[in-house]
Amino acid sequence: MIITMKKDASAKELERLREGFDEKGLRVNVIEGEEYNVWGIVGDTAHINDRDILANRCVANVQRVSAPYKLANRMFHPEDTVVDVGGVKVGGTSPIVVIGGPCSVENRDMICRIGEEVRECGAQMIRGGAYKPRTSPYAFQGLGYEGILDMAEARNRTGLPIVSELMSADKIDEFVENVDLIQIGARNMQNFDLLKAVGHVNKPILLKRGMSATIEEWIMSAEYIMASGNPNVILCERGIRTFEKYTRNTMDLAVVPIIKERTHLPIIIDPSHATGDWKLIESVSLAAVAAGADGLIIEVHDHPDQAWSDGAQCLKPEKFQELIRKCRKVAEAVGRQM
Amino acid sequence: MIITMKKDASAKELERLREGFDEKGLRVNVIEGEEYNVWGIVGDTAHINDRDILANRCVANVQRVSAPYKLANRMFHPEDTVVDVGGVKVGGTSPIVVIGGPCSVENRDMICRIGEEVRECGAQMIRGGAYKPRTSPYAFQGLGYEGILDMAEARNRTGLPIVSELMSADKIDEFVENVDLIQIGARNMQNFDLLKAVGHVNKPILLKRGMSATIEEWIMSAEYIMASGNPNVILCERGIRTFEKYTRNTMDLAVVPIIKERTHLPIIIDPSHATGDWKLIESVSLAAVAAGADGLIIEVHDHPDQAWSDGAQCLKPEKFQELIRKCRKVAEAVGRQM
Amino acid sequence: MIITMKKDASAKELERLREGFDEKGLRVNVIEGEEYNVWGIVGDTAHINDRDILANRCVANVQRVSAPYKLANRMFHPEDTVVDVGGVKVGGTSPIVVIGGPCSVENRDMICRIGEEVRECGAQMIRGGAYKPRTSPYAFQGLGYEGILDMAEARNRTGLPIVSELMSADKIDEFVENVDLIQIGARNMQNFDLLKAVGHVNKPILLKRGMSATIEEWIMSAEYIMASGNPNVILCERGIRTFEKYTRNTMDLAVVPIIKERTHLPIIIDPSHATGDWKLIESVSLAAVAAGADGLIIEVHDHPDQAWSDGAQCLKPEKFQELIRKCRKVAEAVGRQM
Amino acid sequence: MIITMKKDASAKELERLREGFDEKGLRVNVIEGEEYNVWGIVGDTAHINDRDILANRCVANVQRVSAPYKLANRMFHPEDTVVDVGGVKVGGTSPIVVIGGPCSVENRDMICRIGEEVRECGAQMIRGGAYKPRTSPYAFQGLGYEGILDMAEARNRTGLPIVSELMSADKIDEFVENVDLIQIGARNMQNFDLLKAVGHVNKPILLKRGMSATIEEWIMSAEYIMASGNPNVILCERGIRTFEKYTRNTMDLAVVPIIKERTHLPIIIDPSHATGDWKLIESVSLAAVAAGADGLIIEVHDHPDQAWSDGAQCLKPEKFQELIRKCRKVAEAVGRQM
Repeated sequence: MIITMKKDASAKELERLREGFDEKGLRVNVIEGEEYNVWGIVGDTAHINDRDILANRCVANVQRVSAPYKLANRMFHPEDTVVDVGGVKVGGTSPIVVIGGPCSVENRDMICRIGEEVRECGAQMIRGGAYKPRTSPYAFQGLGYEGILDMAEARNRTGLPIVSELMSADKIDEFVENVDLIQIGARNMQNFDLLKAVGHVNKPILLKRGMSATIEEWIMSAEYIMASGNPNVILCERGIRTFEKYTRNTMDLAVVPIIKERTHLPIIIDPSHATGDWKLIESVSLAAVAAGADGLIIEVHDHPDQAWSDGAQCLKPEKFQELIRKCRKVAEAVGRQM
Repeated sequence: MIITMKKDASAKELERLREGFDEKGLRVNVIEGEEYNVWGIVGDTAHINDRDILANRCVANVQRVSAPYKLANRMFHPEDTVVDVGGVKVGGTSPIVVIGGPCSVENRDMICRIGEEVRECGAQMIRGGAYKPRTSPYAFQGLGYEGILDMAEARNRTGLPIVSELMSADKIDEFVENVDLIQIGARNMQNFDLLKAVGHVNKPILLKRGMSATIEEWIMSAEYIMASGNPNVILCERGIRTFEKYTRNTMDLAVVPIIKERTHLPIIIDPSHATGDWKLIESVSLAAVAAGADGLIIEVHDHPDQAWSDGAQCLKPEKFQELIRKCRKVAEAVGRQM
Repeated sequence: MIITMKKDASAKELERLREGFDEKGLRVNVIEGEEYNVWGIVGDTAHINDRDILANRCVANVQRVSAPYKLANRMFHPEDTVVDVGGVKVGGTSPIVVIGGPCSVENRDMICRIGEEVRECGAQMIRGGAYKPRTSPYAFQGLGYEGILDMAEARNRTGLPIVSELMSADKIDEFVENVDLIQIGARNMQNFDLLKAVGHVNKPILLKRGMSATIEEWIMSAEYIMASGNPNVILCERGIRTFEKYTRNTMDLAVVPIIKERTHLPIIIDPSHATGDWKLIESVSLAAVAAGADGLIIEVHDHPDQAWSDGAQCLKPEKFQELIRKCRKVAEAVGRQM
Repeated sequence: MIITMKKDASAKELERLREGFDEKGLRVNVIEGEEYNVWGIVGDTAHINDRDILANRCVANVQRVSAPYKLANRMFHPEDTVVDVGGVKVGGTSPIVVIGGPCSVENRDMICRIGEEVRECGAQMIRGGAYKPRTSPYAFQGLGYEGILDMAEARNRTGLPIVSELMSADKIDEFVENVDLIQIGARNMQNFDLLKAVGHVNKPILLKRGMSATIEEWIMSAEYIMASGNPNVILCERGIRTFEKYTRNTMDLAVVPIIKERTHLPIIIDPSHATGDWKLIESVSLAAVAAGADGLIIEVHDHPDQAWSDGAQCLKPEKFQELIRKCRKVAEAVGRQM
């Protein structure tokens, strides 16, 4: 940690600050500059908050040198984490996984039928929302527990693991019992109580990036889950919010090599939410595979125009199958199985 | 609602779509254009989701004409809502309120001492966090229930209502019992289960704008609370996330006249989080008052450099008092009491 | 064009507005709604500015239905434009092109040497800046005309066409005489006088997207060039400015299918500026090829640590060669030559 | 300047980098950390580009301690710069100035008539565009030189100095001869050739912030003008581009205290472009005055619905007069004349 100190700082202020570091067992090295002095703090600074240091009026700037995350950090855990989701491996050199299914579970028949379709298209997992985060209180809010049971039935029929979003800690038991991969949605990426709650369960977690979360904040949210005891976190990029409104969000594909350099966790891509437009999904999926993603999660519906939510970004099964076929060629071209 | 229809749409698709509107009692007017046809949908479209219409492959674009919110809408509720917080009125022509206090409650003495200081400076309410949303799992997470009881004691000693952030629905009872104004933080603005939960209680809610929430999404989150039965919502702008990193966030002051035009709810401003820098707070507070805000919420600490969180954006009591004194002059200049 | 009209608009206002449309030969269709009335304007509205209509106090909202660009519009020009750059074809079904070279020309030997290296690696064109847009007035500003002559010499030695950035219309003659593909940089994307100037020359133009330009604004800048008489425009995505600071910019790869749907112009990708980090370039380049881009423009330097500018985002020739080799496999996988 | 060095850097790399600093007369202090080593570079680093250092593969991060600007820097020029615009003083303790007038000059009568109106309302300068940066090539591009002469006539009739935007260096002579305050627009904030050109003239410059320019980049553009010899720069905030689309841009009012802390230059606010909506202008103007701005530039038109450009954000003279009247009260409340 590097602290830029104002030249006019009083000896008393500096002394108090230095004592604080001494107490924490940290060493302070001082460089005298022309406009500022600089303190280099040596030792384990992960537990020090940058902004707390900045609260000292004598401090002009604070710069962290080492990352604020430990458990997710590639530096201390060089080998790739491979997450097992009901028998399907995600990450490392495992084949690229595809997760397909509707935005919302509409009824048992529908999710079982689409589940079978996505399996036949080549997907390894089924997605489907039973609890839906909707901008409007007047929009369909999901089938709730009934939808979770419908998902479980789709797993029984297809043999594929299922993914669904958990919105509230009080539903955690039904998810642990029934769901193979518990999704934390973008809007809850910094719902820290929920992160701690899923850190205590023995199921893998799919952690979506928040709409305006920095890469570091996203990794810190994974760190929350891991620090609570659950090491099985899969990260999912789903686009960030920018000034550009042609797409629903702006897909940030550079996160793929960045996450792989900085962490040891698997990363998958959600082109449906990133673009919001079914016509763009194939192109962006091919790009994600080429960039090195460990998987794709894609919304599929057999009648998008009748979908209860997000039909505009749903692929029909035949398009989904074609997408997988094309992605497999790209995967092969970059030396990856799929 | 205005739907732009592709010229090559099949008769069958169009018929099915039209039938859907008929069933909902909506009227469809068609304008034949050169490159597109346009459908104007007349009737109450608040329950129709734009993106669901967009799911039809024959649809090129959907534009909402009337706002998707009803209860918060000024059009249907022209008079200002005035929220009563433990006897202090907020909104309408009530005097501008000032809420002061530390980021976190550190212990009972501290919050009582600072509570008394902010009252003497001229504040009408005390803020203090007992449950803290922190980016890092290794940072101080707040005193929890003990902190809430400390806040309650500060109210007893000062007679001022207290404000604190609720992060999880399972703590709602202790908030209803002890806290006068329940804050929903920026990171939970779209934690819809939490919004519904506070919609069922009989206490006023302070709803902070999410870091990347549009004004419409923010109002829709207020609509969630109101639709669940709680009409007492105060909106709070705390800066949005932009490319500019000199400040912690970018304060969006134009929301003041916008919220007042579109809704009937009170709006207050949080210059501490908007700027992240105590040196900028006075200037931005004066601006907020001049713009027409109904209140200010400001972090105050008697020893910012020893604050357990957010010291960099805390004012010392003497600065806070000076700020209130200056703001009063501006309030008077714009015809408002304070 | 769809205009949402306030219900309380006066007859006089409405009449005057309607007369304005009549005079332009446009037809007005009115839909009476419950909260608003809606006017559909039928006819060629490309010359009407949305915001001018919005200036009428009776107007609540204006929504454009057809695109404001004509010459760049795929709707009126369905076949792909293929741009010929000194014999190298870009766009349509032409092989994917690679443009390589340093950020800045440092001297004649250097650009000739690197030019030969990038040719041997498999590039089809050489890039190099002689006039450099630098944030600081104290930074190296480029060799100027001497640098352009050095570039021309590199073309003579390698036989490859050359690309360089034009910053000011008064240098246009030396560019027309010496440069094969004239680049308009991101900072000048809305320097409309410069756009008009290059619209009058008989050389192809590489138009970079502005740092915060919407896709529509970017296409409109191409329209400026085309409307002045030059149809040979290649678009280049180089990342947009967002809140995320881990990368220099955020690459927006969804533009590839969007540009191909909305326009008939070729689009290439600049992963060097999009990421600002040489370690991320390979991954993002592979993604761009998979997404369907018509080319790549990449900074290459044989001694990045001694580069006079942008060394942090330069590839060494051996990395560049490996990147091309890998990209060729992906190109083949998506049915494209390279 | 603080450089974070990877632990695995080779002795040779480090030596070469250190020699580079030695040659520039800079001193290097090394702090050995646990995960990284840190170099503190002491001396005048204004001429060193951060990104050039980052080009060394052994470097993990570069952090600038002192600002990259010198001439604009408050640290080296503590007293406020007061700019004289045709006899009207801007900055320091001068009265707050108001600049009013139409977006575009439409004809001589119109600009003279509106010029007289804004003077009577209490403005000290007249604005009017003769060369207009328009997104569409099909939109009105301004009257050109004729418009400049019309502006000059408005000055003759009213006695008020005039402000107009220069878009291209080849028109600089007509601006020097006729215009009192030469505006560089947001889209040209990093048109460095234009900045250098206006750095050579003996007229004050109004430098608008670019739509996505950081505060530092904006100050660096002022530094360009000043480094070319022209110290008379007035900065103008006109809103930045964000995800929020309710307003045309997002006004960033915190820049007022920031610019005053970091530089000695005057800063004025443009609420017309910041909001894009005449209904929001009064509120935002009052806020700007309260925040400490040195002036306002506001679009005024007597028939906004017939304005040739930007009518939606134009005030009518009576509203403009009322705004000035209200702003004066706020100015007085914050101890400023107006």
